[in-house]
Amino acid sequence: MAKNLSTFISSKTKTVEINRENPTVIIGERINPTGRKKLLNSLKEGNYDVVRADALSQIEAGAGILDVNAGVPGVDEEPIMRAMIQALTEVTDTPLCIDTADPISLEAALSIYEGKALINSINGEEEKLESILPLVKEYDAAVIALCMDDDGIPSTPQERFAVAAKMIERAGKLGIGPERIVIDPLALTMGADHNAGRIAIETIELVVAEFGVNVTMGASNISFGMPYRAHINSTFIAMSILAGLTCPITNPLEDEVNLAIQAADLVMGRDDFGMNWIKHYRKRQKKS
Amino acid sequence: MAKNLSTFISSKTKTVEINRENPTVIIGERINPTGRKKLLNSLKEGNYDVVRADALSQIEAGAGILDVNAGVPGVDEEPIMRAMIQALTEVTDTPLCIDTADPISLEAALSIYEGKALINSINGEEEKLESILPLVKEYDAAVIALCMDDDGIPSTPQERFAVAAKMIERAGKLGIGPERIVIDPLALTMGADHNAGRIAIETIELVVAEFGVNVTMGASNISFGMPYRAHINSTFIAMSILAGLTCPITNPLEDEVNLAIQAADLVMGRDDFGMNWIKHYRKRQKKS
Repeated sequence: MAKNLSTFISSKTKTVEINRENPTVIIGERINPTGRKKLLNSLKEGNYDVVRADALSQIEAGAGILDVNAGVPGVDEEPIMRAMIQALTEVTDTPLCIDTADPISLEAALSIYEGKALINSINGEEEKLESILPLVKEYDAAVIALCMDDDGIPSTPQERFAVAAKMIERAGKLGIGPERIVIDPLALTMGADHNAGRIAIETIELVVAEFGVNVTMGASNISFGMPYRAHINSTFIAMSILAGLTCPITNPLEDEVNLAIQAADLVMGRDDFGMNWIKHYRKRQKKS
Repeated sequence: MAKNLSTFISSKTKTVEINRENPTVIIGERINPTGRKKLLNSLKEGNYDVVRADALSQIEAGAGILDVNAGVPGVDEEPIMRAMIQALTEVTDTPLCIDTADPISLEAALSIYEGKALINSINGEEEKLESILPLVKEYDAAVIALCMDDDGIPSTPQERFAVAAKMIERAGKLGIGPERIVIDPLALTMGADHNAGRIAIETIELVVAEFGVNVTMGASNISFGMPYRAHINSTFIAMSILAGLTCPITNPLEDEVNLAIQAADLVMGRDDFGMNWIKHYRKRQKKS
């Protein structure tokens, strides 16, 4: 591998280095009210106990960064986002990933967050690049960049690579280096296209070979509608880690996928003497 | 991938094509008395019922080729090998992999086997190359080539690649093309060297990029002495398939590893419309 960039995401007191030689960094996805009634209702009530609990349980399960999404349908997002970040800062120094489509909410979050956040996300759409990249620059943040643009999601790895290259170039023009761009190749559903997994993996291989950037991905869409989803997701995530995935967005409480990530790190020699693996084993033994 | 060679292994009436675009071919490892008391005792008694049953159960579980090992300590191997091949030919047309360190036994097996066998194995040792390669040539067979030589097992992927290159070259001099050489990178125990998995995978990547050859491997050593072995083996085999492993030697009755192989094929788009995956699911549903 020619280049192997380090992306640094930090809170006030803790820095996470995402790098292909380090263990995989899990971005915990649970602090997102979409499809989670309990969290949704608590946010509507102005209660942030579920947010705090979700943070702690994900960290305990191995999350290195926490995704924070404040999207409550029909409710102004900005104050909720602020309150969530406040609540999270009270209970953890784990760095955050600010997950919002709303530039106002994003800027509010960045302005109160003490550290280098990961922003979720830009894509190749002109409007996104123009509204979000200046915030990435101003707040010295890193950003997840999805391989899609105004024409939608390209169907070949080469076209997705081209979108990635465009986003990296546009960021570069503002002085944002490629080490601050985390590419998401986009994993679609194999039920719709049985090559969806292969396309995502080949996109990863292309962007890593060319730019050495870090790579994120949500790995659970791929198996939608199929039996044995956990097995498919585990296998897909392990193969993606070999291809160059460094910081998957996932639910670390799902033991099957979590184990696959740790096993992949072990196999890649990123878990010195298997210490993480054995620690996880002991934790499970205690539970059962 | 520059080249993608097809290795053809056949019985009298059935041919298996090993190729990186096809579903992974499992070489079933169970017909081997080492460590299997029941099989060992039956062979000592001249009873081949266990051999036949092992063949059928492995085929049912998805084996595309059957490894046949006749090594019974203290007993002349040749007549057992002959009888095993005879017994197997009676119950199945699945192609065979002749697994023996004894050239006499190997030649006896090849002389009665009707088809193109896979031979298990040569390595880079001078004596092996001189005794076995002429048989590969004479019987139009293919051969598993282990990445080790008179100096032992090299510790780096580059050195293992060099051994692979030497074996391919030596075979070529006899007119045996690289499509008839199936490289085994050798997966050692991570307990002894925590980079063992990575070394095997990088060796695969090197030989595939250079020669496009097919690759086999026994994937279960890697986890020896570790907890959750099935998870490690599954993850390792899926990553190895992405790297270029095409015909692992494994026990298809171990459901965890079998599922990982099928999931890897699914993710790589080698399982059209997920038909194999769903078939396997239905089979499991019926069992439970």
